[in-house]
Amino acid sequence: MKKANIGLIGLAVMGENLVMNMESKGFTVAVYNRTVEKVTRFTEGRAKGKNIIGCASIRELCDSLEKPRKVMMMVKAGKPVDDLIEQLLPHLDEGDIIIDGGNAHYPDTIRRCAYVEGKGLLYVGTGVSGGEEGALKGPSMMPGGSPAAWPHVAPIFQSICAHVDGAPCCDWVGEGGAGHFVKMVHNGIEYGDKQLICEAYQLMKDWLGMTASEIQSLFAEWNQGELDSYLIEITRDILAYKDEDGSPIVEKILDAAGQKGTGKWTAIEALDEGIPLTLIGESVFSRCLSAIKEERVAASKVLCGVAPKFEGDRDAAAEDIRRALYASKIVSYAQGYQLMRQAAGTYHWNLNYGGIALMWRGGCIIRSRFLGRIKEAFDRDPGLVNLMLDGFFRDALEKAQPGWRRTCAAAVLNGVPAPAFTSALSYYDGYRCERLPANLLQAQRDYFGAHTYERVDRPRGQFFHTNWTGEGGDTTAQTYNR
Amino acid sequence: MKKANIGLIGLAVMGENLVMNMESKGFTVAVYNRTVEKVTRFTEGRAKGKNIIGCASIRELCDSLEKPRKVMMMVKAGKPVDDLIEQLLPHLDEGDIIIDGGNAHYPDTIRRCAYVEGKGLLYVGTGVSGGEEGALKGPSMMPGGSPAAWPHVAPIFQSICAHVDGAPCCDWVGEGGAGHFVKMVHNGIEYGDKQLICEAYQLMKDWLGMTASEIQSLFAEWNQGELDSYLIEITRDILAYKDEDGSPIVEKILDAAGQKGTGKWTAIEALDEGIPLTLIGESVFSRCLSAIKEERVAASKVLCGVAPKFEGDRDAAAEDIRRALYASKIVSYAQGYQLMRQAAGTYHWNLNYGGIALMWRGGCIIRSRFLGRIKEAFDRDPGLVNLMLDGFFRDALEKAQPGWRRTCAAAVLNGVPAPAFTSALSYYDGYRCERLPANLLQAQRDYFGAHTYERVDRPRGQFFHTNWTGEGGDTTAQTYNR
Repeated sequence: MKKANIGLIGLAVMGENLVMNMESKGFTVAVYNRTVEKVTRFTEGRAKGKNIIGCASIRELCDSLEKPRKVMMMVKAGKPVDDLIEQLLPHLDEGDIIIDGGNAHYPDTIRRCAYVEGKGLLYVGTGVSGGEEGALKGPSMMPGGSPAAWPHVAPIFQSICAHVDGAPCCDWVGEGGAGHFVKMVHNGIEYGDKQLICEAYQLMKDWLGMTASEIQSLFAEWNQGELDSYLIEITRDILAYKDEDGSPIVEKILDAAGQKGTGKWTAIEALDEGIPLTLIGESVFSRCLSAIKEERVAASKVLCGVAPKFEGDRDAAAEDIRRALYASKIVSYAQGYQLMRQAAGTYHWNLNYGGIALMWRGGCIIRSRFLGRIKEAFDRDPGLVNLMLDGFFRDALEKAQPGWRRTCAAAVLNGVPAPAFTSALSYYDGYRCERLPANLLQAQRDYFGAHTYERVDRPRGQFFHTNWTGEGGDTTAQTYNR
Repeated sequence: MKKANIGLIGLAVMGENLVMNMESKGFTVAVYNRTVEKVTRFTEGRAKGKNIIGCASIRELCDSLEKPRKVMMMVKAGKPVDDLIEQLLPHLDEGDIIIDGGNAHYPDTIRRCAYVEGKGLLYVGTGVSGGEEGALKGPSMMPGGSPAAWPHVAPIFQSICAHVDGAPCCDWVGEGGAGHFVKMVHNGIEYGDKQLICEAYQLMKDWLGMTASEIQSLFAEWNQGELDSYLIEITRDILAYKDEDGSPIVEKILDAAGQKGTGKWTAIEALDEGIPLTLIGESVFSRCLSAIKEERVAASKVLCGVAPKFEGDRDAAAEDIRRALYASKIVSYAQGYQLMRQAAGTYHWNLNYGGIALMWRGGCIIRSRFLGRIKEAFDRDPGLVNLMLDGFFRDALEKAQPGWRRTCAAAVLNGVPAPAFTSALSYYDGYRCERLPANLLQAQRDYFGAHTYERVDRPRGQFFHTNWTGEGGDTTAQTYNR
């Protein structure tokens, strides 16, 4: 019997669809599931007549694979992955490859990669984005782990992934947990993208007084231009969708957002790395605020506000909102890339920033024309310090800026919350600010805690302390060694 | 020889000052330090002739204490605390009390409390705020841990702590890590308070074009009113302080803020608990942004902005800024209290919210008249869901609101970053918003991931999924069980 090219464990819908995708690209796939009935149901159902080998045990799965063996786990993140690794190890040989295609938190992948390598095997932790449909038709894939594994998995991954302009949306990200780290940042950025669309929607609805159908037309139009992306496209479709009574179904949906935690991970990572990821932070917090619906309804009857009022050219104001969305989106990606750059230093990953943009350009939820522009920016300058400094994005920000500022001002004056728009603008203004007020903050810290400060007229690394409460009042600053 | 009432280990400046404070209140204190010369230097120096017993070993310290023994550790947070507990255990008896007065992260205190209780002893983790001066003259103290320990430490703690209107700024917080948790939130709020003052300062300087001396006069004036607080007071003094050349020293200080991590802990905690702590989050990120000074200087030459321009009544605009600061401060404390309320549920702490305000009202860096108002709010309604809903604060927000909105609009239109002012306003507008745009977000999540949604016209807990891409276009929503 012909050996299978790859084995896959975990036949939930993502796993099944990946198997179907692999098989359709000419690979023979061995499959196993803890509840073995699922294997039978699959091989006698969707997988019938295909080059898919059902296995009743892990040993059988491993025996059916060509060497070096490649076993992909598509199971629930957390302990099930560790358990499965233990079950796999006795049946694998040196040089075989264990792949985790689930949503692992990247520190777990770092740990597992070192553990499996310590046993003489290779490990790959890969982000897989695009949901069920992506898994079947071509996901975005972000693999990292043992570099020696890449040549063996590349032919499969780069066949089954999404392609844009002939280029695969999958490339090697880096060692250890790099793949799952980049997937985590992807998810954080997805939180930001959705929040931005929601703020645009609310401003058009509550400030400009537009109907769902009018807003729908605008999203359709926006999707033709620089905002062209999957999320704008589905927003257009969502706004067009009518409930049974003919009214827009979106208006019947409860405004209480759920979350699965990956946006939160990204924001925590940013705090730990000291990178201002303000837009994603605000997006995560906005979901939390939406979730306390009853508390908000009660508060709406107690706390006073302003009645949104619009006068003027509505088309022009809507165009301002579009520009605010675009500029804020640039900021969000700039912040996400700053985080990846910092983490690359922390974990000694040699990340290919343009390559990451390419991986995200198709197959996943944040796919967009915009990501092509990011790829080009890193092609122009692979060492780009901040995306906003690239000529294309700098010019885009300049062009969008007046409308962005007007939109933020309108939001705060009309009482329509736009936390992501305004925090993005604050970041932009802070980042381009030669002189922030942190001098006062450092003085405060020195005043009560003798934390010392540096001076603008002395070299960095010299620390001074002032005896602020000294009776004489003119006690001079002294140099401290710390 | 008379037994000591309490022992203290760790004679750095905080430890020494606490000992001097305790002795001055009539307590006999036994002291020990790992580097024993420090003990001798102390007993022959500041402690000479006082009821302070120098000890050359941990055994000697424990032998010199009345029972139940109370040993307070004032050592570096982290492993040194665990090590010291191990060294203490052999010399202590059942019912003795180990106290950690350092800056422990509260999960460590939860763990240590359980560990020490498992050995038949009692444990107290107490926040101590107020820096060196507070330690000597009366700090704010936030003790938590083993409830049975409180009657034994209360007489000492409530003597040495700060007092406001006769009430001690120290009370029992709760079990396990409750004391260190509340201290952590205190530190986060301190980050927010400082950031708000910095934003007011920058707007007056860069938008209104005021000199340090003019700004100084305003802070002096603000300190007479509802903003009366230690941080406004020292800001007033800092702005008055002249360098040797007669110019304000604050203008010579480098605008790159340091941080010691407790603000970050608070923000991470908020993300984990799902509580929108946006203002503290932005404050932490603002410090990160300030720290990359060279990157900002470079960006200031590349990224375009707007030239701040002010026309109109400067005094009125400055009053608007004051109101923005006050309103934002209310939001910040409201968010901090929301976090404490949530954590109290998670960890089964029965927190006394008014009592916490009282503990912070004197002795610590965030001490203010304002905290008395918070105490009163919780006196009026101990179950207050959100501080903003209390009558006093609701009215204060209403009064401050027009100026707050104008200030935020001016910041975004004039390119002066005010992330804390604007994020506070976004939170206020979001919290009082009956209908947020999360309905669209839920539709998006259902579209690509079948995450389901709830409906406004159906009871909570019923979940629906729409087949958004169905050919017919009118596939009705179905009820799902999750």
